[in-house]
Amino acid sequence: MSQSKQKQGTGSNKPSLWQSPLFQPLRVITRSFSPYWLACIPLAALIIVLWDTAAHAQDFEGPDSVEELRAVLDSIFLLFASVLVIFMNAGFGMLETGFSRQKNAVNILSKNLIVFAVATIAYWAIGFAFMYGGAEGNPFIGTSGFFFANEAAPYGDPEYPEGVPIAISFLFQVAFAATAATIVSGAVAERVKFGPFLTFSFLLVAISYPITGRWGWDELGWLGEMEFNDFAGSTIVHSVGGWAALVGAFLIGPRTGKYREEGGTNAIPGHNMSIATLGCLILWIGWFGFNPGSELAATANVPYIALTTNLSAAAGGVTATATSWLRDKKPDLSMIINGILAGLVGITAGCASVNYISAIIIGGIAGVIVVFSVSFFDKIKIDDPVGAISVHLVCGAWGTFAVGIFDGGTNPITQIIGILAIGAFTVVFSGIVWGILKATVGIRVSAEEEVQGLDIGEHGMEAYSGFVKEADVLTGGFSSSMSSKGEEFPRGSEG
Amino acid sequence: MSQSKQKQGTGSNKPSLWQSPLFQPLRVITRSFSPYWLACIPLAALIIVLWDTAAHAQDFEGPDSVEELRAVLDSIFLLFASVLVIFMNAGFGMLETGFSRQKNAVNILSKNLIVFAVATIAYWAIGFAFMYGGAEGNPFIGTSGFFFANEAAPYGDPEYPEGVPIAISFLFQVAFAATAATIVSGAVAERVKFGPFLTFSFLLVAISYPITGRWGWDELGWLGEMEFNDFAGSTIVHSVGGWAALVGAFLIGPRTGKYREEGGTNAIPGHNMSIATLGCLILWIGWFGFNPGSELAATANVPYIALTTNLSAAAGGVTATATSWLRDKKPDLSMIINGILAGLVGITAGCASVNYISAIIIGGIAGVIVVFSVSFFDKIKIDDPVGAISVHLVCGAWGTFAVGIFDGGTNPITQIIGILAIGAFTVVFSGIVWGILKATVGIRVSAEEEVQGLDIGEHGMEAYSGFVKEADVLTGGFSSSMSSKGEEFPRGSEG
Amino acid sequence: MSQSKQKQGTGSNKPSLWQSPLFQPLRVITRSFSPYWLACIPLAALIIVLWDTAAHAQDFEGPDSVEELRAVLDSIFLLFASVLVIFMNAGFGMLETGFSRQKNAVNILSKNLIVFAVATIAYWAIGFAFMYGGAEGNPFIGTSGFFFANEAAPYGDPEYPEGVPIAISFLFQVAFAATAATIVSGAVAERVKFGPFLTFSFLLVAISYPITGRWGWDELGWLGEMEFNDFAGSTIVHSVGGWAALVGAFLIGPRTGKYREEGGTNAIPGHNMSIATLGCLILWIGWFGFNPGSELAATANVPYIALTTNLSAAAGGVTATATSWLRDKKPDLSMIINGILAGLVGITAGCASVNYISAIIIGGIAGVIVVFSVSFFDKIKIDDPVGAISVHLVCGAWGTFAVGIFDGGTNPITQIIGILAIGAFTVVFSGIVWGILKATVGIRVSAEEEVQGLDIGEHGMEAYSGFVKEADVLTGGFSSSMSSKGEEFPRGSEG
Repeated sequence: MSQSKQKQGTGSNKPSLWQSPLFQPLRVITRSFSPYWLACIPLAALIIVLWDTAAHAQDFEGPDSVEELRAVLDSIFLLFASVLVIFMNAGFGMLETGFSRQKNAVNILSKNLIVFAVATIAYWAIGFAFMYGGAEGNPFIGTSGFFFANEAAPYGDPEYPEGVPIAISFLFQVAFAATAATIVSGAVAERVKFGPFLTFSFLLVAISYPITGRWGWDELGWLGEMEFNDFAGSTIVHSVGGWAALVGAFLIGPRTGKYREEGGTNAIPGHNMSIATLGCLILWIGWFGFNPGSELAATANVPYIALTTNLSAAAGGVTATATSWLRDKKPDLSMIINGILAGLVGITAGCASVNYISAIIIGGIAGVIVVFSVSFFDKIKIDDPVGAISVHLVCGAWGTFAVGIFDGGTNPITQIIGILAIGAFTVVFSGIVWGILKATVGIRVSAEEEVQGLDIGEHGMEAYSGFVKEADVLTGGFSSSMSSKGEEFPRGSEG
Repeated sequence: MSQSKQKQGTGSNKPSLWQSPLFQPLRVITRSFSPYWLACIPLAALIIVLWDTAAHAQDFEGPDSVEELRAVLDSIFLLFASVLVIFMNAGFGMLETGFSRQKNAVNILSKNLIVFAVATIAYWAIGFAFMYGGAEGNPFIGTSGFFFANEAAPYGDPEYPEGVPIAISFLFQVAFAATAATIVSGAVAERVKFGPFLTFSFLLVAISYPITGRWGWDELGWLGEMEFNDFAGSTIVHSVGGWAALVGAFLIGPRTGKYREEGGTNAIPGHNMSIATLGCLILWIGWFGFNPGSELAATANVPYIALTTNLSAAAGGVTATATSWLRDKKPDLSMIINGILAGLVGITAGCASVNYISAIIIGGIAGVIVVFSVSFFDKIKIDDPVGAISVHLVCGAWGTFAVGIFDGGTNPITQIIGILAIGAFTVVFSGIVWGILKATVGIRVSAEEEVQGLDIGEHGMEAYSGFVKEADVLTGGFSSSMSSKGEEFPRGSEG
Repeated sequence: MSQSKQKQGTGSNKPSLWQSPLFQPLRVITRSFSPYWLACIPLAALIIVLWDTAAHAQDFEGPDSVEELRAVLDSIFLLFASVLVIFMNAGFGMLETGFSRQKNAVNILSKNLIVFAVATIAYWAIGFAFMYGGAEGNPFIGTSGFFFANEAAPYGDPEYPEGVPIAISFLFQVAFAATAATIVSGAVAERVKFGPFLTFSFLLVAISYPITGRWGWDELGWLGEMEFNDFAGSTIVHSVGGWAALVGAFLIGPRTGKYREEGGTNAIPGHNMSIATLGCLILWIGWFGFNPGSELAATANVPYIALTTNLSAAAGGVTATATSWLRDKKPDLSMIINGILAGLVGITAGCASVNYISAIIIGGIAGVIVVFSVSFFDKIKIDDPVGAISVHLVCGAWGTFAVGIFDGGTNPITQIIGILAIGAFTVVFSGIVWGILKATVGIRVSAEEEVQGLDIGEHGMEAYSGFVKEADVLTGGFSSSMSSKGEEFPRGSEG
């Protein structure tokens, strides 16, 4: 108690004692922290007053009936699934970083890390309301529940134990929303400006993804009404990310030196296949949250969904390896990786409704498609460093259509309508946003920065300090760059 | 609707319009994708017709009784465990890659990635039936349930809610089966040919592992009848992988330069201790799926099993560190890693039946054993780059035998019979398969390719593009290799 | 049976046959393994006799009532949470390694790997009893249950199904205890001796952490009695680790060359931002075990806790990025990472009792604090290579205090008392232990070893063999060091 009183007395003694040696550390503290963060305090107080109607954690005891226990089990299962889907951020991050050059690694890591934070804020503030906003909503867009204010419960049922708590529905959904934004990251990597990318991600997660998501997944959505069948989001998540990536990659243009003027492609190999492979394996297990979690409850269907998912991934990996081996005489690791991902994206729509052999066929075909699709986009000079468009857009569309082939209860025509309608909206939205960004702040770094690498240009640091890179040696600048590095990379430096 | 109709009409208009600029993109697409994948469509249709008796996802609602809820909880728990075991593929992949040289990293990553896909297909098509094939089976081999056809339910009970759905039993089992194949990978790393390794993996998972697995784990198995106690597979999984690894490492011979002609060993240090350590930590958590999941249901035993597992891992890490420190004067990181893994493998057989202090003793002894075992295999010139044989075979056998010492209900003699019988079968099988492969297509890359690295030779790419490697500098080929790299690493290149 | 008989006969034939060629392999084995590990056998036998009263796994069947099912669900949930928290070891390991220089990577990886093993043994033998030791305990320290002997059940209720099995309580708690030790590792990295660090870690987990932990978390604890509110351990785990780190960093002194004599700081950039970012993402998902798991049961609160956790992390990431961007003109990846961690540490105390908007404010302020705190500690010349003190101590204290602001039911004064009391105890304890270690064996490596790197000095190996490092080139020692490397890095070598 005396300690806390002493601390309270500090303020009143300040005029007389403040300059004494006793308070030297405190003076340092005060100087260090002013003026930015102190401004947060009144702001915080204001917001709390305005918002104190929001929910507190309730005093839930453990469940006492089968009904309560079932709701809790559903919640725990969805937490498990959410964690796996959130872990996919690490998968995408490692995959994309590994497939790119080391001079851009910090930039790619930064994008992939902050994008989940930005998506969380965007979806919390706006997206969740647009996607699942309550009873007064309509088949095209939700209109209530912004900032997750609980006076309008947009989705799920907060009246435990009738349904799972809304908090876990939100967490699972925001993980999906972030996935769409992350997919875009890969296709525009190694030349996109950091700020505009974050702006695009925010708007995609806040506006575009939730609107098309509502069409297909909300019980009020017009595509859902038509029985469009995209169980876990081959189209609603993956193709949406893929379309936004395609528009972005088209508008930003290929990386310098990728396509030769006389025709043909220069390979730009990735810098770290170890973390890229790790990323693929993280994504593989992440999909056991993505697909089974889309059941939105713990049921005896969950194992079935998990198994179709795994069979399709395996088939995609095998056929992509075989295709690459047959075509190029050697099995390309990046194709093995993309084949597995193709199988996973492909089965995402149908994982709950096609049989096991169909899952293998869907994944197997996706694994073949992705190999040729990567070549195709190079042929039309859409530069996609990690193959995101091929994996997520092309195989997402294939997987959605495939449900119409392999599941007797799904109308192929409806699947095509869904693919095209969602694609068209996303292309228009992405075109407008990327277009405005391009016309105003610009979306592409300077040619000089691109050559030097975005790590220095955008972030002022490098990813692999202490290692000798080929570029250092080729430019002859190794020894001179070494001597000045203290200045060049001032992480935490105070000069 | 008009969109889909237009698409349907494309075929009939092809002759007249196909050469027009309007269809230029479609022509590019068609050229890109022909002819391989189009062949899949009739094949797919045929297979579907033949197979449409396979299971569809049923319309399971959420559970309504304690009995149903229990089956669903079991399923969710097994999904959780399966995900952890599948994640072990990432652990093994990072461990093995990190312990090897960077010039072979792409090859090792490719092996470890595709092997789970291959194992999934092999176990789905053949292995599961051999291991758990139904009532008409016998104590040595199952004979029904190939291609996971559900007319014969080989294992578990599809009649929900009497037991967990068969899909999750399969997923958990296939993750185990893949582990056995992955263990082999480490011991033959840095010189094995890619194709023959995949062939061996397929056959191990399809035939050998399921047969010995049936002996010990199926209720009809002859070792199970004798009360052979290998709860989670110290012998049935780890020693099996270890024996196959030993035979492979013996037949393929040591890496060039590993053993001096005048006697003694040249150290070949691994290239990336960061990912190797990450791999160890991934394996550590993976074992919380491997061992507790082997309870095959959510019971109050699960925590007990998790804790013996963790205590043994910790003890193995501590004693291996101490042993390495005492013997070599410095604690070797690779020994810390292998000590932890030794503790984990050692407790796998007894995790459910020995007490806590016994778990610590079993793991502690395993940690000492592994340090000396690694030296022993170097002494007899069995070159095992990652110590897989010491960790999985030697400590697996130790752990299985230890159950006979520390669990009063288990007969040591029975344990020895199990270890030897399963070992003998696996050695004979592995010897035949590796032997045939060696005599026909060959299992070892050329001496030239081994020096250059398998990444270029087997896959045509390198793992760490953009970094300067010691080999580049020593051979004086750095600047010349730089200028030609565009041609050397044609990932996705169209020339 | 004949096989086992044959083996049994081996012993009696030994005198006559032992020297024959038949037993040459066995003779090699015997020589390789003697004399160290053979000594374990009588020791093991003795310990077993003394300890055979400890628990065996019971024959639990699956749960048959709602009450039993609830206890099992709680157990499975806590296993899930434990696995995530244990996975945080990988997160901390990758983060700390990536933020440090490559010449110290093996040392840091070794520390972070073995520390969980050491913590497991320390907490099992001593810590758990001090923290939760049973009814005869007192508000300051527990006095029973050492070596986890179950005659005194310190925590939880082994009488299933009244509560979760004690094994899972222990596993969850030991994962937390290890976290405190791991935090210390980061602040003393790149100059601490391996042995003394392990000694400190053992004592922290065995004695200090459990005592202050009892104060706040045990139902008998004096701070708990006062309604000190630190739900998941902003203070009890993170600040404790942070205080121990601060004392350690102060006593060991800054890294050579970090602070210029004329004032100002030399940046020492980390060597691998890819694994550092991966570490952050692993920690992010780890926190979904850390915070929700602290509910200690599967309830409908769990989703709420998960969501406040995620919102705070996102807010911390966004505000740290913005602050770094505003202040330094470029968004620093290490600040994005530390901002996310700051948000996570900040919400740890209040995750179950503050509302969503408060969670965003707490995390957002933490993200600002951490940026200035890192600068502050550089200003007062406390060298903390990874920012551990800022993230865990400063933001841990902030988060604990913030509960008093944002949760109407919590007294701010009590929070301050808790922060200061636990801090004071930890500082005194750490000061004594670090002080004694410094005065006796020394805690800092030699200046020469620090320049060369701890990997060679402490462990005799390097992390990234085969890559050319800048230090090799600058010292001109590249070609000469290459020729001698066979001797320098004798991993597994027998000479």
